[in-house]
Parts: sequence; structure tokens; C-alpha cells
Amino acid sequence: MKQDFPNLQNDAIIKAAKGEKVDRIPVWAMRQAGRYLPEFKEVRAKHDFFTVCRTPELACEVTLQPLKRFDLDAAIIFSDILVIPQALGMEVQMVPGKGPTFPEPLQTPKDISKLNHKPDVHKELGYVFDALTLTRKTLNGKVPLIGFSGAPWTLMAYMVEGGSSSTFSKPRSWLYKHSEESKELLNILTGTIIKYLVGQVVAGAQLLQLFESHAGVLNQEMFNKYSLPYLKRIVDEVKKNLIEADIEPVPMIVFAKDAYYAIEDLAQTKYDVIGLDWTVDPVQAREIAKKYGKSLQGNFDPANLYDTQENIEGAVKKMIDKFGTKSYIANLGHGMYPDMSPDHLKAFIDAVHNYPVGDT
Amino acid sequence: MKQDFPNLQNDAIIKAAKGEKVDRIPVWAMRQAGRYLPEFKEVRAKHDFFTVCRTPELACEVTLQPLKRFDLDAAIIFSDILVIPQALGMEVQMVPGKGPTFPEPLQTPKDISKLNHKPDVHKELGYVFDALTLTRKTLNGKVPLIGFSGAPWTLMAYMVEGGSSSTFSKPRSWLYKHSEESKELLNILTGTIIKYLVGQVVAGAQLLQLFESHAGVLNQEMFNKYSLPYLKRIVDEVKKNLIEADIEPVPMIVFAKDAYYAIEDLAQTKYDVIGLDWTVDPVQAREIAKKYGKSLQGNFDPANLYDTQENIEGAVKKMIDKFGTKSYIANLGHGMYPDMSPDHLKAFIDAVHNYPVGDT
Repeated sequence: MKQDFPNLQNDAIIKAAKGEKVDRIPVWAMRQAGRYLPEFKEVRAKHDFFTVCRTPELACEVTLQPLKRFDLDAAIIFSDILVIPQALGMEVQMVPGKGPTFPEPLQTPKDISKLNHKPDVHKELGYVFDALTLTRKTLNGKVPLIGFSGAPWTLMAYMVEGGSSSTFSKPRSWLYKHSEESKELLNILTGTIIKYLVGQVVAGAQLLQLFESHAGVLNQEMFNKYSLPYLKRIVDEVKKNLIEADIEPVPMIVFAKDAYYAIEDLAQTKYDVIGLDWTVDPVQAREIAKKYGKSLQGNFDPANLYDTQENIEGAVKKMIDKFGTKSYIANLGHGMYPDMSPDHLKAFIDAVHNYPVGDT
Repeated sequence: MKQDFPNLQNDAIIKAAKGEKVDRIPVWAMRQAGRYLPEFKEVRAKHDFFTVCRTPELACEVTLQPLKRFDLDAAIIFSDILVIPQALGMEVQMVPGKGPTFPEPLQTPKDISKLNHKPDVHKELGYVFDALTLTRKTLNGKVPLIGFSGAPWTLMAYMVEGGSSSTFSKPRSWLYKHSEESKELLNILTGTIIKYLVGQVVAGAQLLQLFESHAGVLNQEMFNKYSLPYLKRIVDEVKKNLIEADIEPVPMIVFAKDAYYAIEDLAQTKYDVIGLDWTVDPVQAREIAKKYGKSLQGNFDPANLYDTQENIEGAVKKMIDKFGTKSYIANLGHGMYPDMSPDHLKAFIDAVHNYPVGDT
């Protein structure tokens, strides 16, 4: 099923993802729709977090809010990585000041049997697809719309830990104590994520980003065993399934936060873009990315947005000097924090666009 | 003032720190005294956390508990990195399930003026010195006693954030918004830490470890500006002050968690040993350490202790194959988790000792 969408007017981010020439460096910001915007807080004052996710009109509204303020090169659908555990039958609550909380986390591998192993993504996550379609149409071709999903390890980490953690010692203990059952869980998640992402593209997503937000608590060996193979399977199968459905595959971005050691392994997968957090040296990452013909995304320290607007401009220039202008999507190294100033994000975005791209 | 302590019978860890030949690889574990031990929980059932820290007999008792169970090559004094903010006049509470909490964190740079800038460490932290002296005497030369301190940035991060955090966005915002005041605070902390560590050696500490636990939230530029210079000043001045007091400087270990990018910079300081977390590749770290004649400590993934005892043995062997046996102190890549089995820590320790050191 192909939908008829308005023509795209600004395809800089798609071109950068494919390594093609751009007229200016494309830029977006993780969590660009969110609590740092007063207009977002107004919506949240009336509706709880998951109601916004589940109501296409509201999700569309908050997705487009930052585009009204800033000259962004992409929209990212407002949603949450934990909609997948919800689709598998788990309850997730957003507890103020504490973040996402699972009242009944997976306590033993036996609890895996309680999950809905093969959820109908159209039934359980159709609201995301509807939000994507509505937003894509409302965008009217202004900029591309990004869809996303949490990666299997990151979702497993939340489902077993029951919420955020500085160590994620419970899910890490599963990898050693219950290796086979962990793989079973990761496979269940992977299968659902693949269907979810294919559905997102059909619904209107023009790029996809995978968030492996908790990669950093894994050592290299565990990352190679419990994260990388699933990330690979997702990009392989999403692209294959789209081709088989006669739909052009969209560029895919992988962001494995704090897994600095995995950049070369990720560059050897079919992901088009490697997202980087702010601890990574752009020069070293670019060397690796070049070898494998990959694009890079990142990696401005979000905390640097607390600086003066003048200093932000200088820091953006230094960052792009290191990344170069080719095969590059400017972004933060992680999401916006709630107490940040919209004006400072604007300074970041404008500084990226003011960087001359030359003829390279 | 020099004290008369019993002769040291096992100096393997001192030798390894200095790069000298050892008969077996020395090993200890961060948080080797702690909640994973039933005998520790018994003490804690009767006394709150900071009472144990502040009562030399109790601190000595729990420090020695793991040495009764395991063939450890060092004791580390039971204490907490947050005793320094306490000495500066801040209140710290240990909230179960939440960790350390400051009821009144530093909310603006003006709050720095409320701190006791130059506390008398003998008055405010004399209980740590007394615990060290009592423990050193009670150890009777069995193994060396390690003293420690939090590093300035890590302490500032807690003091401004008011507790643990996945982003530490508040203290990171200070570095950009209030650079001069941040440096003032880091200088106050540095001055106190230097006196505290010198006092620890006088009191009986035979090695010192600096914990820069929150290095990983800083980008390289910020680490080089707000962490590294203070870490350097500490090692320089502690060693200088000890020499001036006619006391032999003790080996010093620096552990900047998640600052994989800083290993070469740290190797160029006067620290004798670089501690590594479990994401770092020992082979690459060893290459750097060799260049600067430094020893390494680490970096077994704590979660690997959830594995079977047989698998722990295999993983320890693989780790030491990579580190080599020279200039090496085996340890975890972070502290023990409360739900771990003492038997599995024993398997780790014994596996280290069973690794043949040969004639190198």
C-alpha cells in the first residue's frame, strides 16, 4: 500500500544520509519536541504523556511545534521508545521526576511467557502510524519526517530493570545468568521492531533512527553478542521487507550511546548514518566512517546549549571543522534537557546553517 | 609525625603499582566491603551509613570483613567520597533505593559562599584518619591499606545536582554558565582533597585512589578544562607535600570512569596507576600505559560476576591475557552490586591468583 504524499521541498537530510552534495548542512535535535518548549508544556498540562503519543492530532501538533520556531531540516514524530514494551503487553507509567516506570517488570525469564510475542503492530501501534501519516500530510513536504524505535537491548534493559538505572545491573545479570532466555527476549523485540519500522515507512516516515540508549553499560564482548546482531538484523530485514513490498528503503540512522568502541562495527552494517554522543572525537569517527562510506550524525554536547549564544556559535563552528561538511547531519549528542532555552537551540541551528559548505 | 606500624608482609600491589616484579597478580575489588556481604548488612542493620563511616571501630570492622573471606591483596578503608562535601558544611543523607541526597544542594554560585572554604581536615575528617590508623594497626601488616577521595569534578557534580543523575545537567550547566565560579568551587575542593589525602597517608594509608566517577558525562574539552587540571594538581601536591614532610609518597591510582578518551592524558600525569572501567580494551590501554611507564588497574565487568564460577575463571583468564601480568592490579571495572554472591567474588579473586606470572 503506497500513499500519496506531497512533494518534498527540503531533502538535505536525506542527501546527507546518502553522502550526496548539500547546499547547507542539515540539522535537527534529539527531543526537539519536548518540555523545554512552553507550548509543549501547555499541551502536557492538559494531557498525560502517553495520551499525547496515542492521539494522532496531539502527537502531530507537538511534532510540528519546534518547526514553527526553528529552521529545522527534519521533524521527528513525537512518541516514545517504550511503546514497544506496551505493545508486548507491559504497563509503563511516566512518573514525574523519576521517568518511565514499569509497575511489573520482568522479574524472571518465566515472565517472558506473559508477553504478547507477536503483537499485531497495526492493532497495537496503529496510533503511531496514524500520527506519522497525519504529520507527513500536515508537513506538506516542508521537511522529511523521521520515525524511530528503541533497539532491542535498550528495551530489554528497561523491561527487566523496571525503569532507569545508573547500572542496569538486573538486565546485565540476565545476559550472564539467562543467556538463552535473553536472546529469546531480544528476538521477540527484534521481530516486533522490524514490523513496526516497516509500518512506519508505509505510514510516511522518510528516515528511521534506532536508539540503543543503554549501549554504554555493556562491555564490548556483550555488545557484540547482545546488541550488534539484533541491530544488524533490523536494518537488513527492514530494508529487505521494504524492497519486497516495492517501497524504496529509507535511510537508517543507528545511535548507540556511549558505545564509542562499536563505531567501526556499526560502520560495517547497512545503516546509512552513525549517530555519535558528545564524548566521541569527530575526527576519529570520520576516519572510520569514510572507510565504509557512511555518514555521521551528532554530536554537540547538549550542556553546551547552556552557554551564551555567541559561544554556541563558536563551538558549532569548531565541531563542524572536525566533522567536515560532507555526509554529515548536525545534531546534539543526546536529547534536549527540560530547563534549556529555546533561543539557545535556535543559535545552534542557525550556526549550523551559517557554516559554509563550499563545493565539496 | 611518623607512626610506627607493623611490617608489611604482602606488598604485591605496591610493587605492581611501581611496575616491579610480583610473584602473583595482586587483586582487590571496588566496594569489596559492602552490602553484598551478610556480615556487612548485620552492621548496617544496627548503624546508619555515615555512623559506620564516623566510628573508627565500625569502619575498621567492615573494612576487614572481606579480608576474612577472601585472599585479597589490599584493604580499602570503608568511607564515602561525600565526606568532603560534609566537611565543607553540606548535609548528605543516604536515602534507601535512591542513594546519596543533598537536602540543600548548591543552587546558584552564591551558595559557594556558604561553604567552609578551608575546613580543618583534622577536625572535620579526623574520624577517617582514626579509622585508617586503627585499621592499619589491626591489619598487622597482612596487606596494604588503601585510602581514597572523590575527585573535584565528581564532588561538584553531586553538590550541584543534589544526588545521582543520568545527565548531571545542572553541574554541567554551571561549567558553561558559571565557568569562573565553577573553577572557584573546584579549587576549594582540590585544596581540601590534597590536605585530606596527605592526612590519610600520615594516618596509615599505603596507596591512594582518586575517584572521578562522573568523568563520563563530560566531553573531552570539558574534561581537559574542569577535571584533568585538578587531578594533576592533587597528585603533584600530595606527593610534594609528603616529600617535604619527609614521608615517602605512596602510589596513587586515578580512576576516571567512562573517560576512555582521557587515558593518554592521565598517563602523562604523576599518577602511578590508571584505573579502567569495563568498556575499555585492555590491549589499547596497555599500549598507552607502556609508553609512559604506568601501571593499569581493572577492568572486569562487575556484571560478569553474575556468571557461573567456571565462566568467571575463563573470563578472568581472557582479561589477564590482554592486560599482561606486569604493572597490573586486577580489579573490577566498577564497584560490587548489592545482589552479588560473595562466592562469585571469591572465584574472581582466586582466578586472578591462579594466573601464572612467569618470569616477566
